[in-house]
Amino acid sequence: MFEGEERIGEEVGSEEVGEEVSGEVTEEVSEVTEEKPKEEVPEGTYARFVFGSAKDWKYMIQALASILHEATFVFTPDALTLRALDPSKVALVDLYLPSTVFDEYECDGVVRAGILMDILSKIMKRGKAKQTVTMEVKERRLHIILSGKKTPVRRFGIPIIEVASEEIPEPKIPYTARVKMTSEVLDEILRDADTIADAVKFIASPDEFIIKALAEGGKALEARYPSSSEAFLEYEVTEEAEAMYGLDYLIDFVKRMADVSDIVEIRFSTAKPITLTFEIPGGGRVLFMLAPRVE
Amino acid sequence: MFEGEERIGEEVGSEEVGEEVSGEVTEEVSEVTEEKPKEEVPEGTYARFVFGSAKDWKYMIQALASILHEATFVFTPDALTLRALDPSKVALVDLYLPSTVFDEYECDGVVRAGILMDILSKIMKRGKAKQTVTMEVKERRLHIILSGKKTPVRRFGIPIIEVASEEIPEPKIPYTARVKMTSEVLDEILRDADTIADAVKFIASPDEFIIKALAEGGKALEARYPSSSEAFLEYEVTEEAEAMYGLDYLIDFVKRMADVSDIVEIRFSTAKPITLTFEIPGGGRVLFMLAPRVE
Amino acid sequence: MFEGEERIGEEVGSEEVGEEVSGEVTEEVSEVTEEKPKEEVPEGTYARFVFGSAKDWKYMIQALASILHEATFVFTPDALTLRALDPSKVALVDLYLPSTVFDEYECDGVVRAGILMDILSKIMKRGKAKQTVTMEVKERRLHIILSGKKTPVRRFGIPIIEVASEEIPEPKIPYTARVKMTSEVLDEILRDADTIADAVKFIASPDEFIIKALAEGGKALEARYPSSSEAFLEYEVTEEAEAMYGLDYLIDFVKRMADVSDIVEIRFSTAKPITLTFEIPGGGRVLFMLAPRVE
Repeated sequence: MFEGEERIGEEVGSEEVGEEVSGEVTEEVSEVTEEKPKEEVPEGTYARFVFGSAKDWKYMIQALASILHEATFVFTPDALTLRALDPSKVALVDLYLPSTVFDEYECDGVVRAGILMDILSKIMKRGKAKQTVTMEVKERRLHIILSGKKTPVRRFGIPIIEVASEEIPEPKIPYTARVKMTSEVLDEILRDADTIADAVKFIASPDEFIIKALAEGGKALEARYPSSSEAFLEYEVTEEAEAMYGLDYLIDFVKRMADVSDIVEIRFSTAKPITLTFEIPGGGRVLFMLAPRVE
Repeated sequence: MFEGEERIGEEVGSEEVGEEVSGEVTEEVSEVTEEKPKEEVPEGTYARFVFGSAKDWKYMIQALASILHEATFVFTPDALTLRALDPSKVALVDLYLPSTVFDEYECDGVVRAGILMDILSKIMKRGKAKQTVTMEVKERRLHIILSGKKTPVRRFGIPIIEVASEEIPEPKIPYTARVKMTSEVLDEILRDADTIADAVKFIASPDEFIIKALAEGGKALEARYPSSSEAFLEYEVTEEAEAMYGLDYLIDFVKRMADVSDIVEIRFSTAKPITLTFEIPGGGRVLFMLAPRVE
Repeated sequence: MFEGEERIGEEVGSEEVGEEVSGEVTEEVSEVTEEKPKEEVPEGTYARFVFGSAKDWKYMIQALASILHEATFVFTPDALTLRALDPSKVALVDLYLPSTVFDEYECDGVVRAGILMDILSKIMKRGKAKQTVTMEVKERRLHIILSGKKTPVRRFGIPIIEVASEEIPEPKIPYTARVKMTSEVLDEILRDADTIADAVKFIASPDEFIIKALAEGGKALEARYPSSSEAFLEYEVTEEAEAMYGLDYLIDFVKRMADVSDIVEIRFSTAKPITLTFEIPGGGRVLFMLAPRVE
């Protein structure tokens, strides 16, 4: 049924593609650009943060691990960032967590820590709600320290690896539809679609937001929301947008992030990648970008 | 150990078999006969109902789907009915839900909707306690609409299929034992038996109700209840009854129905099918009939 | 990485091994010796007890079944005991439950009941918190009777088998470290280690208790507790002790026992078996002994 999935790598930073689309909203993109680490900061070897909820950190790591096999955390004096494509280059994850997100944050320069996501995810499974998590880069190892009142301090260590990766430029995907909704509602919709199909179509017009799934044997799901629906905190469609995305990429990521972040911003346009942005208390955000499926 | 399972098809409507059994109780059977749709109603093409709890509807559909691969829902102006044998013709499910069971109910004639039960069951898995479920037959499709306060309306659609089925006559199984108990207790007993065996023997005498399971290696379970036990809401045995039934058919059906219906009526006689009747608030009932296992 | 596991059978009752170790604490061992059944009691054929919580009994049986394939319960007038090695003779379980542990207890002599643990464990899975469990040896069968207010009495029966077993002498393992901690904390530590490794190293010095796990690929876990930590109810180290133990044996046993018994006593010395002792209300205890892994 589907001819294949486009690669998101081809979209990244491609201005020409953007210019083909009319009505795109681009203010926010330029704003995001300022988050980039300043180039003058020297390389460092030590970094450390304390995050208040080991449980929320667990969910974020599990969201990343559902997409990425390995990735490089980049500590700068201002923020912890991570930008990586999934192995098939269909999805991109872009993490931006300024130091204000953390209870404690320090680094002695730009510190890069390549990590196998599945082992970090396994360790973080041990994180509980009333525990804090500390991550520390020291002597070419990543230390994960879980501590709580009931359970004493446990210190995990894993090696830092060299992640063979080209620099991924700031993705600038134009869009004609932008809506904000509760991440729980998005999660529920995706699970609905998952009962019958392996991809989901988003259709946004100025009046209505429609989610459709079609599967073999005539099975179908359709959820329609008037733009005035309570489901939307913000609704902004400059031109009708319609595109289909693979559920296998979306469903685990959204499920995990919905446990951490109440609100999700969805941006997309016809036959272009979709961008989901989850806000993290303290000024951070986790951005997820997924290439459309070609029908 | 067991030579095989009798077919329930052979019992259905067979008066002669009934006459071989003495002491049978038959008043209720004739009463049930009136539930049949009146033959003069013309064929229709549209039907629709709203059921107050998507969760309870989920459990009922899951109970049906544990026995039936496919089945035909029949809407008449008075009631929604379904009567079907499992693929091996060992078990029969007979659903009778008068319009009073539903919040809303309408149809423009006798409307038959053949459905693949597993896909309906998968969709209904999405049903939550505080959601209503609407089922609508329209243009040869079945639409399942879930709606709740928190989650907006989702509309699933599945094709209506032609279920190749002979008309199954009203089953008239004579019985010499009839007891009413909480469906939770029956559920627990079956799960007990399931730990050691794959079939369970029911023995009812005027004084005592005994449930036995025997398995290879000398494993055994026995639960004895005096007829005066609090477990029984009604207890009526005209002649001792003893028969064995396969757990694989009973256990999932009873488990699901116990979540919907508090009380179950059990009717059986020696070496004859067992009938379980679950009442549905509003005057409905789900009847489950299972042929005995030959030892 | 590990050359293999030592056999605990070789340690059992070996005084010579004990004398090689300096600083061992042995008072408790001699005290334990008195628990042995007096030899003059004649063989019996009937035994029975009632235990107040079917749920706690379930967890104990599940702990035993995680280690033992089959074992012999020995009823004496004073106590129910069980002492058995796992099939690979790496672990020993020693159960001592005096009659005071039970609501009712009786036997007509020394009664031995060999049992397949997995079938007993399956039956006990049905045990709930508000039910009592009765075990009765009668006519060469073990009867397990579950009863509660809501669910009527269910009587399971399984055959008693001949367990081919040499008499296992009272294990006398010397130790230089003895600590008491909450079994929940031990459970959590083992689960932490289980995320990255298949064995765990215990290191006890007078000042500090360290738990370490190392796995391929440079993964590591380390948890350090000063001897003054709140985690310890008692802390007594006469000589530094360091030994490694297999997680597959420890993790299920400790998980189950932690549900029954709040406090665990840990005793070990360098390259010697570890002994975990869980107290059972009413004066009983479950002792678990595991041979060290050779690195």
